[in-house]
Amino acid sequence: MSASGRWLSGTFPREVVVAAAQMGPVARGDTRAEVVERLITLLRTAHDRGAELVVFPELALTTFFPRWAIDDVVELDGYFETHLPGPATQPLFDEAKRLGVGFQLGYAEITPDGHRYNTAILVERDGTVVSRYRKVHVPGHDQEEPWRAFQHLERRYFEPGPGFQVHEAFGGLVGQATCNDRRWPETYRVLGLQGVELVLIGYNTPIHYLPDPGQDRLAGHHNTLVMAAGAYQNGTWVVGVAKGGVEEGVWSLAESQIISPGGEVVARAITEGDEVVIALVDLDRCWDYKRTVFNFAQYRLPDRYRMITEEPKPD
Amino acid sequence: MSASGRWLSGTFPREVVVAAAQMGPVARGDTRAEVVERLITLLRTAHDRGAELVVFPELALTTFFPRWAIDDVVELDGYFETHLPGPATQPLFDEAKRLGVGFQLGYAEITPDGHRYNTAILVERDGTVVSRYRKVHVPGHDQEEPWRAFQHLERRYFEPGPGFQVHEAFGGLVGQATCNDRRWPETYRVLGLQGVELVLIGYNTPIHYLPDPGQDRLAGHHNTLVMAAGAYQNGTWVVGVAKGGVEEGVWSLAESQIISPGGEVVARAITEGDEVVIALVDLDRCWDYKRTVFNFAQYRLPDRYRMITEEPKPD
Repeated sequence: MSASGRWLSGTFPREVVVAAAQMGPVARGDTRAEVVERLITLLRTAHDRGAELVVFPELALTTFFPRWAIDDVVELDGYFETHLPGPATQPLFDEAKRLGVGFQLGYAEITPDGHRYNTAILVERDGTVVSRYRKVHVPGHDQEEPWRAFQHLERRYFEPGPGFQVHEAFGGLVGQATCNDRRWPETYRVLGLQGVELVLIGYNTPIHYLPDPGQDRLAGHHNTLVMAAGAYQNGTWVVGVAKGGVEEGVWSLAESQIISPGGEVVARAITEGDEVVIALVDLDRCWDYKRTVFNFAQYRLPDRYRMITEEPKPD
Repeated sequence: MSASGRWLSGTFPREVVVAAAQMGPVARGDTRAEVVERLITLLRTAHDRGAELVVFPELALTTFFPRWAIDDVVELDGYFETHLPGPATQPLFDEAKRLGVGFQLGYAEITPDGHRYNTAILVERDGTVVSRYRKVHVPGHDQEEPWRAFQHLERRYFEPGPGFQVHEAFGGLVGQATCNDRRWPETYRVLGLQGVELVLIGYNTPIHYLPDPGQDRLAGHHNTLVMAAGAYQNGTWVVGVAKGGVEEGVWSLAESQIISPGGEVVARAITEGDEVVIALVDLDRCWDYKRTVFNFAQYRLPDRYRMITEEPKPD
């Protein structure tokens, strides 16, 4: 019997209380210890309100360093983790395990063989590391562009990860994505084809989009639009969590939210600072959609989609 | 130079006034002549308000006959067109050409070799037939299901069409989709990869979704959500046009709308009857998105999407 079939039998617990743990700005000078203390405060707040899974933002441990061209290797490495948990972050892992709360945390990863990724670790309620998801759709640019008021050098600092995979965790099938991944319908679809029921997304999204400032006023609309469409079109819950507010002079979108498989926002942050919002996530609601209008086996026609996986031809 | 490059040079007219020509119900007993008269009235209204392209609904010439199991071949064939234009529909084509207005019209097609499709014809302002798009994502079921208050037998009456293709028309790149196609992100993406700037969609959408009535209250939300996401994620205008209202006892969604490449609804019908809404569609706005956040050549990673075009494996 497939995993989904097993769960549909009703023998599994299928409800999980999820917290979106939004963060306000992290300054360039903030230490890991200071940030970890904030994370622990958010974790405890979420636990007090019944959360079993706490979702933190992308690159939660530091300021969003891709806004600068950093040539000093020591300085740059200071924003990365060679070990997670490591000495500074262990207290968060310990407290989560003690409380029996799982979490997702975004961080800059250096692997033992020297690869650099924009990564999100997923940890179960018992402290087991479920996965380290490496961001696939790395946005921005790889060379410094002096015309920009601030840089977005993710493509200089991170390689793209290998792909999207679901994991059995929290009583369901959980997928992960990071920031720009959420704009691409392929992200949700690749997870959806694996039966995903809960997609966890951290983000840092500057509101001023320098390549086309006309989009600035739509930042909040686009954020909800892409996550709600991904949720509905795949019959999955989606949790989007920001590091928002004005960080080192750059204003980033907050509006952390939890979205149902019907594409409804069921919880939404109303500040640009550290804030926890909670929702009861009934994973069985996914099957309202997966069994009907988005029954992939019945209605999808992959041979009509071939262009989607073809490499682009030269123009 | 590619087609898009040519247009970006600014030597082409890049604005087109588009009308969504929503229809109220068509009764089972209505004749083609009566319906064509309504279509001509809508066409003239749109032309009076400056429209150069008028989008009519899916299966606009008759009542939505897949709601019945029809065993009588003569009766069933009566809902199909063997020729379009044919004797009853020629007056619409003549009037459109006389006014210099192009249009899209949905109809049930029987091909000369006996295949049946849910088709939308696209006609240029000079009367040239640009394309006949055949619906790919045929929804519903193929056997009568007596538990349903009404049937949705599209899969009994129509074969799926061969795929999505853009066409040079109305000064840009135009794509077509029909009803259920609009729920599938693959629809917009396959068109988007061909550079689509304007997607024309007719629909008949019963508000009561019998397989899961919990979705009924979200029918309007889902309609806007999928079209707005498809527009934004591909940097294209989308025009969605309903046959709405209570037709032969079945209530269908109206809410015809025109959506910008930013995913903003710029025109929306407010009745469930025959109604024309208009928007000035500047095709160059598409490139605000196609050149930046959705620069496919720069940001897509097709090898991470392979699952999307794989045939499903047995469970």
